[in-house]
Amino acid sequence: MKERYEDSHLYKLRHSAAHVLAMAAIEFDPDVKLAIGPPIENGFYYDFQFSKPISEKDLETLEKSMAKIIKANFPVRHKELANSEAVKKLKKEQQPYKVELAEELKDEKLGFYGIDTFWDLCKGPHVESTGEIKAFKLLSIAGAYWRGDEHQPMLTRIYGTAFASEKALDEHLKMLEEAKLRDHRKLGKELGIFMISPEIGSGLPLWLPKGATLYRLLKNYLTLLEEEQGYQHVITSELGKADLYKKSGHLSHYADGMYPPIELDDEVFYLRPMNCPHHITIFGSELKSYRDLPVRIAEFGEVFRREKSGELSGLQRVRSFTINDAHIFCREDQIKDEFRKVVELVRFVYKKLELNDWWFQLSLRGDAKADKYNDNTLVWDKSEKILRETLREMNVDFVEKTDEAAFYGPKLDIQMRNVNGKEETIATVQLDFHLPKQFGIDYIDEKGQKATPVIIHRAVFGSMERFIGFYLEKTAGEFPLWLAPIQVKVIPISEKVSSYAQNVKVELMKRGVRVELDDSSETLGKRIRKAELEKIPYLLVVGEREAKDKVVTVRSRHTAEQASVALDEFCSSYLTDATLPR
Amino acid sequence: MKERYEDSHLYKLRHSAAHVLAMAAIEFDPDVKLAIGPPIENGFYYDFQFSKPISEKDLETLEKSMAKIIKANFPVRHKELANSEAVKKLKKEQQPYKVELAEELKDEKLGFYGIDTFWDLCKGPHVESTGEIKAFKLLSIAGAYWRGDEHQPMLTRIYGTAFASEKALDEHLKMLEEAKLRDHRKLGKELGIFMISPEIGSGLPLWLPKGATLYRLLKNYLTLLEEEQGYQHVITSELGKADLYKKSGHLSHYADGMYPPIELDDEVFYLRPMNCPHHITIFGSELKSYRDLPVRIAEFGEVFRREKSGELSGLQRVRSFTINDAHIFCREDQIKDEFRKVVELVRFVYKKLELNDWWFQLSLRGDAKADKYNDNTLVWDKSEKILRETLREMNVDFVEKTDEAAFYGPKLDIQMRNVNGKEETIATVQLDFHLPKQFGIDYIDEKGQKATPVIIHRAVFGSMERFIGFYLEKTAGEFPLWLAPIQVKVIPISEKVSSYAQNVKVELMKRGVRVELDDSSETLGKRIRKAELEKIPYLLVVGEREAKDKVVTVRSRHTAEQASVALDEFCSSYLTDATLPR
Repeated sequence: MKERYEDSHLYKLRHSAAHVLAMAAIEFDPDVKLAIGPPIENGFYYDFQFSKPISEKDLETLEKSMAKIIKANFPVRHKELANSEAVKKLKKEQQPYKVELAEELKDEKLGFYGIDTFWDLCKGPHVESTGEIKAFKLLSIAGAYWRGDEHQPMLTRIYGTAFASEKALDEHLKMLEEAKLRDHRKLGKELGIFMISPEIGSGLPLWLPKGATLYRLLKNYLTLLEEEQGYQHVITSELGKADLYKKSGHLSHYADGMYPPIELDDEVFYLRPMNCPHHITIFGSELKSYRDLPVRIAEFGEVFRREKSGELSGLQRVRSFTINDAHIFCREDQIKDEFRKVVELVRFVYKKLELNDWWFQLSLRGDAKADKYNDNTLVWDKSEKILRETLREMNVDFVEKTDEAAFYGPKLDIQMRNVNGKEETIATVQLDFHLPKQFGIDYIDEKGQKATPVIIHRAVFGSMERFIGFYLEKTAGEFPLWLAPIQVKVIPISEKVSSYAQNVKVELMKRGVRVELDDSSETLGKRIRKAELEKIPYLLVVGEREAKDKVVTVRSRHTAEQASVALDEFCSSYLTDATLPR
Repeated sequence: MKERYEDSHLYKLRHSAAHVLAMAAIEFDPDVKLAIGPPIENGFYYDFQFSKPISEKDLETLEKSMAKIIKANFPVRHKELANSEAVKKLKKEQQPYKVELAEELKDEKLGFYGIDTFWDLCKGPHVESTGEIKAFKLLSIAGAYWRGDEHQPMLTRIYGTAFASEKALDEHLKMLEEAKLRDHRKLGKELGIFMISPEIGSGLPLWLPKGATLYRLLKNYLTLLEEEQGYQHVITSELGKADLYKKSGHLSHYADGMYPPIELDDEVFYLRPMNCPHHITIFGSELKSYRDLPVRIAEFGEVFRREKSGELSGLQRVRSFTINDAHIFCREDQIKDEFRKVVELVRFVYKKLELNDWWFQLSLRGDAKADKYNDNTLVWDKSEKILRETLREMNVDFVEKTDEAAFYGPKLDIQMRNVNGKEETIATVQLDFHLPKQFGIDYIDEKGQKATPVIIHRAVFGSMERFIGFYLEKTAGEFPLWLAPIQVKVIPISEKVSSYAQNVKVELMKRGVRVELDDSSETLGKRIRKAELEKIPYLLVVGEREAKDKVVTVRSRHTAEQASVALDEFCSSYLTDATLPR
């Protein structure tokens, strides 16, 4: 098992760097009000209310102050004050946000961490001394509401990052630079994958022809694999009655994420937040025997999430997306086997997609959000145990993380870092003893008695939108041949050979190749350059010699080599991996 | 061109039969209040307010009265009364609905048609005498609001039909009997195609695994053909901002059919009623030159229609459905060519689906709903002319019908009769000079000037839901081999050969055949019968002899013959048409 980030030295180091940033901010503006300053995944931030304007160019000044404090190698000390004393101290320092935080804490004693003369209300952990912060950088300034609440004051958030070595920082900054080039919003536009139109609405991406092709190929491929594994695909409605979501618990646990109700003819409907209730309804529509299980119901099902405009971003945060979803209804004695098959399917598919840097995370309950979970402790314990055991039996690497479960059960999450190095959950497998009871679904067991099935909720791609966004960034748009929206582009050198070029195109189309012809009036060089920017796997350049010899000159995306071959040879030698892999 | 039903003798005959029904109703209940009694597509109805209860078993009494009136061969006479005189007469007869109708008519004189002593306010036309009604039957009783308005009184509607011969009536009644068996709601359930769940909501069908397979095959097939013809598929959002539908005219012409608005973060969205605005937005997102046209944007796009609960029915009337939609953006000089290709595509696809009894209808403006249409007469004239000319040049049979156009232009409709003999529009091709202007889309023409493209809106299947509903009824569930959700079922005679049967199944799956194995404990006869009811094209029955000889015994859905062949031979001889046709 991996070390938890929260337990790492890097985490402490970044936490201390945030305190050092606060000290620099006080030096910059002695009247600054301090809010909070936690370490985050790839660095840290601190929220301030400055008494004078601040902009990106002031970051350098702050960095200089920070460098001095770090160089001084102050020890990071710890002390505790009685609750009332702490509040008094913070009031005296005229730090209203800190006062508010302290007043809310019910502990008898409150912890403070001190660097030089600056003591900050804080639970830690921290490094021993500021000198351990070997490398740091302030990255950006953003607005952030106090407590994330739009009715509270808007504060100034300064983001930074810190590392234990200059080398690690440099690598991180290089990755951030690279990430900008690989941003899926940038690539999505350049490669004609998707667009977002202000007329239609933000958070509502439109898949352009090449994006729709990529989408369809991924969908067809997984459908094929799922069918082979005995999944049954369905297509269900995006609307459902209010009662359905009362029963499923979505309206009580998840109403904030749901769209407003829709009234039709005195009945209240919702755009669905998830597909589960629909699949459960289908399972429950016919009597099942123990011999019928497992029943695996799959759908590329569209769901709707209420997101704030300000939080929408490209394909990552959208208001409606399609989950590659399935619900496996099985007996308790089938859980391990089914769970294992799902884990294997994920590994198989990700391998075919040439994705390597992802990992499994076992997401468990936690105390922090205890009220979020349904309260059958016995079932939770059992579920967590089954998942953990199966993973160990399979010798699968995974990390465990609390406070990350679904409200109805523990999950196995598929984790990846985005190009900015931020960890994200791509897809999940969830074990659920709760919803089958809620919906009262059952099957007839070996003894002729009614029994309750278990549901495994699972996704391989998760949200198609988010997955393709990720995939664009991971591959920088250089998809494997079988997924390239356009696999081959034919470029005639001159108008004289345009009919030969057209023939080549038609012949390839007949063979099911996704091919385009560029006979525009641009120069040859420009057309080749354009095709390269489009990341097209193969260019076939044809001139009079090619037309005469009935060959094509092949330029591959990945090599500088060129070769003249007959069209049949091109198909048999270069396009062997052009169709859905098996 | 076909004779219009409204001009036919059958239409008059049914209109007169409705009057005869009113006379019978008066005999049954002298205090009955009469509303309206028009001929309809396959018969006629009359709406009454009875002063005493009436039920299906009273239809026989009414039929007897009607038979007497018909036998008496009364002439059907015509007279006109001055408006005020007519109202006075109807008031005196205490017919409040007729009074209301007469008072609304602004004509100086009102027409009446008389049979024996019964004179009914009516515009005609009618037959000469009641004896022309050679055969009739009353079919059912239903409730109907006066003027179709739920705030008005509920009346009793009696449906009947009438023909010029007993033979024609018998054929019609036989068809109705047959229709009950072919009802797509019945077949859809029996064949596991779809279900409608009261928990999820009426009008929101759920495609079950076999239905989803059929749906996917139709979708994949058309996508393939469309791609070959240069269509570009997109996937767009089902929501759009209110302004989008103001611009498109949907909010002013079509608001009744739209779902209520959805507010998200102070912006107003609608679930889309049609896909056009989304496709137009994509077309408009990049500069186009005359050389880029035609641009053909296609999508299986889901749309939402506000329908009253009472009007929902199976797959025919639903609250959300997917249109196999495309919008062709072209220059004026390309209209004929593009329109012709669409007509050819429709004919090609319907032939592959083995559909024969459908026809084209040219749907034009009309005076009756003049306010429904946008008011550029010149453009309407031009559009109607282009469509008519192209059809004539292609030698395509078609009927013309007024008052059936879209609000933005004339249509070519694909018409079919459902199993009840009722005419329905399956899909349409529409010519549109209006929306391109509304959205301000353009292209750069040969002279470097901005020019406005024309849009051809077209569907081949129309609504996937309605189309599959129709297709179920037309085929009675006996789909062509390539569309059968399950193409082959393997039935082992006994448990001894279950592993051989399993092998056969796996071998077929490997070859991409959609195959099921029925190794349940039912008798062989029952399992064969079940597979036949499921309309599975081929049953492979295997016993010890088959296992020993490595053969299968084939039973075809359409012939009683059985043959024992090796699996390879089965595939090469029987499954030649098992994949998407080209």
